[in-house]
Amino acid sequence: MQTVSENACFGGVQGVYSHASEACGCDMTFGLYLPPAAKDGPVPVLWYLSGLTCTHENAMTKAAAQGFAAEAGMAVVFPDTSPRGADVADDDAYDLGKGAGFYVNATQEPWAPHFRMWDYVSTELPALLGTEFAVDLGRQAITGHSMGGHGALTLAMAHPGRFASVSAFAPIANPMQSDWGRKQLSAYLGDDESTWAKHDATVQMEAVGFDGPLLVDQGGSDQFLYLLKPEALAQAMAARRQDGVFRMQKGYDHSYFFVATFIPDHIAFHANALGL
Amino acid sequence: MQTVSENACFGGVQGVYSHASEACGCDMTFGLYLPPAAKDGPVPVLWYLSGLTCTHENAMTKAAAQGFAAEAGMAVVFPDTSPRGADVADDDAYDLGKGAGFYVNATQEPWAPHFRMWDYVSTELPALLGTEFAVDLGRQAITGHSMGGHGALTLAMAHPGRFASVSAFAPIANPMQSDWGRKQLSAYLGDDESTWAKHDATVQMEAVGFDGPLLVDQGGSDQFLYLLKPEALAQAMAARRQDGVFRMQKGYDHSYFFVATFIPDHIAFHANALGL
Repeated sequence: MQTVSENACFGGVQGVYSHASEACGCDMTFGLYLPPAAKDGPVPVLWYLSGLTCTHENAMTKAAAQGFAAEAGMAVVFPDTSPRGADVADDDAYDLGKGAGFYVNATQEPWAPHFRMWDYVSTELPALLGTEFAVDLGRQAITGHSMGGHGALTLAMAHPGRFASVSAFAPIANPMQSDWGRKQLSAYLGDDESTWAKHDATVQMEAVGFDGPLLVDQGGSDQFLYLLKPEALAQAMAARRQDGVFRMQKGYDHSYFFVATFIPDHIAFHANALGL
Repeated sequence: MQTVSENACFGGVQGVYSHASEACGCDMTFGLYLPPAAKDGPVPVLWYLSGLTCTHENAMTKAAAQGFAAEAGMAVVFPDTSPRGADVADDDAYDLGKGAGFYVNATQEPWAPHFRMWDYVSTELPALLGTEFAVDLGRQAITGHSMGGHGALTLAMAHPGRFASVSAFAPIANPMQSDWGRKQLSAYLGDDESTWAKHDATVQMEAVGFDGPLLVDQGGSDQFLYLLKPEALAQAMAARRQDGVFRMQKGYDHSYFFVATFIPDHIAFHANALGL
């Protein structure tokens, strides 16, 4: 693992690191914010999964999470959204290939050799964090924005017992019924839709739900509402009697100004679930 | 004036606007955050002047000022750092020409026709804000980062009675004695150094000081300390008995992670001076 940069931030350290990823078969870069409390021992960790076109950097510089994480005493990890490098397959569209990993393990060509973000985020990167940094893998929570909200919800429901809480900002909530989903799941996983179900938050909410508290914020003026399909997730949450809150935030769009506005609430929500 | 974008943010609006600038002889773009309180009438306004290579956008997306401004009930304006456009002179160096206006009125060729950021920030843009938005020009404060800290300090001292308070993050504190200063002041203003003095915060602190409270934060691990020369300003502040605080922040560098860490303190400082 190499240190790309480390900046003092709210008494802790905002770092950027790179490492050779076995899951993705390429070098991967991630951001990690360690709060001041990490100097005294391992701290709980919040995963922040980013959306289409993002790298590890967008949320790290625009979501304004660090001050609240410092106060709460939790680390925040910002993974990249896809494999990277000259020999990694790509597509001209912004919503397929690099920057659009969709948090799945691809089984189809040309994606299968590198696009294994599910394994990367759920297995390889946690192990690395536990080895290299003062983070307590016994206390994890997860959030994300848009495609990252999709990733957070599906990973949380697939790993009962791992995450104390899950939240999402404007998640792609029902990808099997959306052009943000059908195109990518078909390309990465093939035409057998039974393999897609694990990667649809609404389907998983209907099937299993989440074993802890859940918070979803959705902007009421989000320009991508027709692709996100929050109504499907809201319905499924209510039908399951999921411990959770779905908030439609009037006037907010899909931008990081929306994320930054509500990140204090999300950090406080996860801090509470993590016993901080 | 044209609206480039408006995003809901902390109950208010983060807008970006463009207009034909008479001072700069080109179209200029600026960001303006209006807090929720602006719906009920004019609010005080904090100027945030940005540093070398920045546009109106950097601080707007990375400084995390909006939440604290919303709470305090103040607007924040984010001007660009230079004139823009194909017919505006430029230089290959990052620290001269576009993105490096240094908040002066250039008198030398090829800069004189457009590089009039002093007039733009001190006269033209305030008038536009007062006409177009719910801001109270009777209650202004000013801050900035690096070259913008230089601009904030020199503008504040040159306009007694206008700003209730001034603050700066890692300002270029003594440009007449720095390679971040001598090169630009010479290019924009010519070789007569008597014309430079108005644009050196340390010289102005020695000459006149500021008629209100002043706050300076400087990172102790700033990679540009040798160019910023904070020791000159600290000495001048103390020698004048300036109402003010100079804080050396151990371990912090020159990045926006430093700015974001201390922006809550700066907003609170200005809110107090503005009677909020």
